[in-house]
Amino acid sequence: MKNDTITAPRGFLAAGLACGIKKSGKSDLALLVCPLGAKAAAVFTTNKIVSAAVTVSKEHIKSRSISAVVVNSGNANACTGQKGLKNAITMCKQTAGEIEIAPHNVMVASTGIIGEQLPISKIVKGISKAAEKLSASASAGLDFAKAIMTTDTKPKQAVRQINLESRATSHESRIIIAGAVKGAGMIGPNMATTLCFITTDAAISKLLLGKALKAAIGNSLNKLTVDGHQSTNDTAIILASGLAGNRPIVSRCPRYKKFTDALADLCDDLVKQMAMDAEGATRMFKVVVKGAATKADAMKAARAIADYPLVKCAVNGGDPNWGRIICAVGSAGVKLNLNKLSCKLGNITVFKDGVPRKFDVKKASKAVSQKEHTITVDLGAGNCDDFCYGCDLSAEYVMINADYHT
Amino acid sequence: MKNDTITAPRGFLAAGLACGIKKSGKSDLALLVCPLGAKAAAVFTTNKIVSAAVTVSKEHIKSRSISAVVVNSGNANACTGQKGLKNAITMCKQTAGEIEIAPHNVMVASTGIIGEQLPISKIVKGISKAAEKLSASASAGLDFAKAIMTTDTKPKQAVRQINLESRATSHESRIIIAGAVKGAGMIGPNMATTLCFITTDAAISKLLLGKALKAAIGNSLNKLTVDGHQSTNDTAIILASGLAGNRPIVSRCPRYKKFTDALADLCDDLVKQMAMDAEGATRMFKVVVKGAATKADAMKAARAIADYPLVKCAVNGGDPNWGRIICAVGSAGVKLNLNKLSCKLGNITVFKDGVPRKFDVKKASKAVSQKEHTITVDLGAGNCDDFCYGCDLSAEYVMINADYHT
Repeated sequence: MKNDTITAPRGFLAAGLACGIKKSGKSDLALLVCPLGAKAAAVFTTNKIVSAAVTVSKEHIKSRSISAVVVNSGNANACTGQKGLKNAITMCKQTAGEIEIAPHNVMVASTGIIGEQLPISKIVKGISKAAEKLSASASAGLDFAKAIMTTDTKPKQAVRQINLESRATSHESRIIIAGAVKGAGMIGPNMATTLCFITTDAAISKLLLGKALKAAIGNSLNKLTVDGHQSTNDTAIILASGLAGNRPIVSRCPRYKKFTDALADLCDDLVKQMAMDAEGATRMFKVVVKGAATKADAMKAARAIADYPLVKCAVNGGDPNWGRIICAVGSAGVKLNLNKLSCKLGNITVFKDGVPRKFDVKKASKAVSQKEHTITVDLGAGNCDDFCYGCDLSAEYVMINADYHT
Repeated sequence: MKNDTITAPRGFLAAGLACGIKKSGKSDLALLVCPLGAKAAAVFTTNKIVSAAVTVSKEHIKSRSISAVVVNSGNANACTGQKGLKNAITMCKQTAGEIEIAPHNVMVASTGIIGEQLPISKIVKGISKAAEKLSASASAGLDFAKAIMTTDTKPKQAVRQINLESRATSHESRIIIAGAVKGAGMIGPNMATTLCFITTDAAISKLLLGKALKAAIGNSLNKLTVDGHQSTNDTAIILASGLAGNRPIVSRCPRYKKFTDALADLCDDLVKQMAMDAEGATRMFKVVVKGAATKADAMKAARAIADYPLVKCAVNGGDPNWGRIICAVGSAGVKLNLNKLSCKLGNITVFKDGVPRKFDVKKASKAVSQKEHTITVDLGAGNCDDFCYGCDLSAEYVMINADYHT
C-alpha cells in the first residue's frame, strides 16, 4: 500500500509536530481525528497509579463515539495531582474546540517523565497548530507516529488490508487496519502496554471492537516484556470509522474472525517492532513454555525467563548459558517435574529430562546470536503452554536510563 | 581483633587454594574444619531446582554434629543429574577421609556455572591438599574467604566479639562470631541468599542456633536483592564449636538475645559488603516502605522498587527520578492510598500526599549519588513497614554477565 500509516483507513486525518515539551526540539504533539466520529474501544494500564490522561480517557471511552485522540510525548502527566487532571481535561477541551465536537468525544494520552506538570500553554498552542495541519496523507500519519516517540529510535507502524467476504457481494468488503505504537522502555505484559493507536475503516459494533482489541492485545502487546514493569500511562485505543462500506460486523461471524485475525497479525507486527527497538536492545527472543500444569503457570514461567536480567545479559552476549534459564524457572514458583524438565535454544536441545545434553557450543552461540530466536522450556508438569517476547539487556539500556531525567 | 576471619572463634581451621576448576587459575576450593565437631544450622535456597550440593547438605545438616564444610567455586554442580549428586557425595567422602570423620558430618556447597559436571578428580586432589594446609591462622581464614568468590571483586568477612554476661561470673563469657560470604550476582531475597559461612565458639543448643540463624538471615541476607532471582545453590551455614566456655545458651534468655543481636549485626555487615560488591554495583540503597496494610505488602513494595531496572539505572546515574519509584509501587500489586502516598529521597520529600513537591534537584541528585542512601515510601494504607537493600544497575553488570559463560 502507498499509505502504511494510521491515515490509510478511510476517514482519518492526522498531524504531528514539536510544541516545545521536549528540550531537544523533537516532535512531541500528535493528533488523530475521525471527523465523522468512530466507534472506539480501549485498554488501559493495570498499574494502580495512572496518569491524568488515563483517568480522563477511561471516562471518555464510555462515549458512543470518539472523534479525536490527542497525544503528547516528553511528559507523562502522572503523579501530578489535581493540576495534572485539569491539564488533561484542557487538552481534550482545546482539541474539541478546534474540531467542533464535545470534549468527551476526545481521548487523551501522555508519555514521558513522571511527576512534572505539563507545559500546558505550549500544548494548547500546539493543538491549534496541529489542527491546522491535519491531513489524510501518509506523511501526516508518519508525523503522528513520530510525535508519540520517547526513547524509540524509529517510528513503529503497520497496516493490513483484507477482504472480509469470501465471495463477491453487493457490499464493498475490503477493509484496512493500521496502527502506530511507541515502545522502548517501562514495558511489562499485563493488559495494555505502552501507547498504541489503531485505526480501521471497518464497520463493526462497539462491543465486538472492544472484544477484538482485548484479544489482539492479549496475544501481542501483553506478551512483551522489556523491563517487567507497566507504566502509569499504558493505553491502547482502536477507532473504527465504518467507512469501508462492508456489511457491519455485529456478531461472531466468519467476518469477525477475519477481522480479529488481521488485527492480531497487525499487533504481532507492532510488538516485534517494539521488541527490536526496546531501549538498548540488540536482539529479541520468544520464550515458549510447554508442559505446564496451568496456563497461568506457563505464562509465569515464560515471564520469569524473559525478565531475568542474567538471561537477558546472556542473550546480549550471544552466550548459550542455559543454566540461567533453568534457574529462572526454578524460582518462578510454578509446578515442575525435574525428571521431565527440558530446554531448547533454537532447535538445539541443551537439557533433557533433568540432565544436561552435550551440544555444539558454537552452533548454540550462533542460535542465540540471531536477531530473533526461541527459547523453549518443557516443565513436564502438564499440557498447558504459553509464550512471551523479550529482548536482551545491554550496557546501552543502562546508559539510556541512567541519565533520562537530568 | 587480630584475626577478623572465620578462624577467629576458637576451634576452627580453614584453608583455601586453587585446584583447577577456574580457568583463570584463581582460588576455587575452600575447607572449614571444626575438629571437635560443632553444633550446626543452615538455611537453603527456596528455588525448586537446587544444586546437588544443596541436596546433600540438606540431608547432612540433620546430623547431631558437623565437623567440616567443603566448598568449591567456579562450578555450581546444579542441573547435573545423578552424576552431579555422586560428585557432591564424593566431595563429602574425600573430606571425611582426610579428617577421619563420617561423610554425613560434612556439609558441601558449590557456586559457579550451572549445568556443567564438576572436574571431580581435580577437586579430590584439591581436598587432600587443603586438608594438609588447614590452619587456625587469619591468613587461612582469608584464603577460605577468597576461595569461595566467583565474580566478587574482594573477600567479604566480618567478626564480632561480645560479652554474654552483664557481670563477672565464674564462666568465661566472651564469645566470637565470624562470617564469610560470597555475593555478586543472582541474588534474590527469599530464605538464604548466596553462600554464607558463619563460625562461633559460643556454647548454644542446636535448636536455638537454628532459630538465631533464621532470624539473622531474615533481616539481612534475605533483604538484599541484586537481580531478584535466587540461585540454585544459596546456602547459609553456622557452626558453633562451644569452646568459648560460656554458660551454654539453652533458652531464650538475655544471653540468647545478646547472641542473636551480635549475629544480626554481623549479618547486616556482611550483606552491606555484598551490596557494595554486587556485580557492577557502584552504590547501594535501602528501601523503607511504611504505611503498608500488611507486612507482606511492605516487603512486596520494597522489593518491587529495589528490583525495578529503571530505579536501579536512575541510582546509577545519580538521578532523582522519583516517578519511577512511584511507578514501581503502583505495579507492585499492593494496597495503597493515592491521596496519602509519599516518597522521600534521603531526607528530601519529593512527593507528598499524592502531589509532587518542589525540591532542590541538585541536593536530591547529591542525596542519591551517595555510596548508600535511603528511599522511603509511605503507602498511606496502614501501619506496617519493612525494608530491603538494593544496588544500582550499571553497564558493567551487563558486560560481566554477557560473557560469563564463554
